[in-house]
Amino acid sequence: MSEKSKISMAVIRRLPKYHRYLKELLDRDINRISSKELSDIIGFTASQIRQDLNNFGGFGQQGYGYNVEELFYEIGKILGLHKTYKTIIVGAGNLGQALANYTNFDKVGFQVKALFDINPKLFGIKIRDIEIKDMDYVEEFIKTNNIDIAILCTNKESAQEVANKLIAGGIKAIWNFAPTDLKVSNDVTVENVHLVESLLTLTYLYKSRDE
Amino acid sequence: MSEKSKISMAVIRRLPKYHRYLKELLDRDINRISSKELSDIIGFTASQIRQDLNNFGGFGQQGYGYNVEELFYEIGKILGLHKTYKTIIVGAGNLGQALANYTNFDKVGFQVKALFDINPKLFGIKIRDIEIKDMDYVEEFIKTNNIDIAILCTNKESAQEVANKLIAGGIKAIWNFAPTDLKVSNDVTVENVHLVESLLTLTYLYKSRDE
Repeated sequence: MSEKSKISMAVIRRLPKYHRYLKELLDRDINRISSKELSDIIGFTASQIRQDLNNFGGFGQQGYGYNVEELFYEIGKILGLHKTYKTIIVGAGNLGQALANYTNFDKVGFQVKALFDINPKLFGIKIRDIEIKDMDYVEEFIKTNNIDIAILCTNKESAQEVANKLIAGGIKAIWNFAPTDLKVSNDVTVENVHLVESLLTLTYLYKSRDE
Repeated sequence: MSEKSKISMAVIRRLPKYHRYLKELLDRDINRISSKELSDIIGFTASQIRQDLNNFGGFGQQGYGYNVEELFYEIGKILGLHKTYKTIIVGAGNLGQALANYTNFDKVGFQVKALFDINPKLFGIKIRDIEIKDMDYVEEFIKTNNIDIAILCTNKESAQEVANKLIAGGIKAIWNFAPTDLKVSNDVTVENVHLVESLLTLTYLYKSRDE
């Protein structure tokens, strides 16, 4: 592991946001920006921005600011966006199918190679040219196609069992939409999107407003 | 505002997870649990658990532990789950339709009353009895039906304009799936689900593993 492993998750979680805002600046032909100006549009303090970006060698220059294109490129590289990733979606219900349809992932280099499900009625159906296949063949498919990332969209009950299968096939990164916490070994990375938890946070804040 | 406003977002974000695990304990007929045992299953330290729950008056008793049912009920109340919320989904593309189909929200008291879109071809189509309606009537619908929460699933480009419309209609809570940060006044609560940012975090961690 490199020194990157010492960077806190809080910083890492801010990087995609930097990346998104820098893209917007580039689209508007803005090529140079100070930490103060970046602070105004992104909402973090200028001092936080300087600190965050220092973690990665610091791309700013005193009195000049940041070169937007360079910073955009470097953060993209840090995030691993200079290459493409092969993914599969496991669980082809509504959410799985919606994610297969979500073209924003293509734009950042994610290729969905197949969907998998246990329901025979779904086998062979295509979502944007992506075929729904029989879960029985998922391990084989992962190995043959060198799949990098699995997007887990099963229900809570089968999530762990399915995850074990994916890992047995060689998967090292799971994007987990099932409302449960997966138990995996240290060499497997899991990123959770727990939608109900996010919704409950909103309810709490909404409700507390009036109290 | 009550003293709840002083509770940190970090604590608030952990509450839905407590709620989810307590539900699992109840389903397994476990009625009493120590902070140590809760720590083993939920993954936070016992001291963190005691500290978190103290924020809300502390429901534990020295030498007895927590009453699972009581704690589940109290956290649910804190999260606002003792009542139901009326929601609309704005943007009836793939993601909006998938969320309309996602029955897990019903279970925690969220009723989706309608979807809205600008595409006339979608008007009148029903997803699980929930009708897609003309965006032109969204403000009126919010007022007439006392909608609490709007789920925003438009593209990035129209998100802010649509949010302004929702707020003009009286919406005070937005669950935002559009990949942009909304500018709203202080009395409006926004909770973001930025899917691409979550995916980029996963890529970063996956990529860093091998470095």
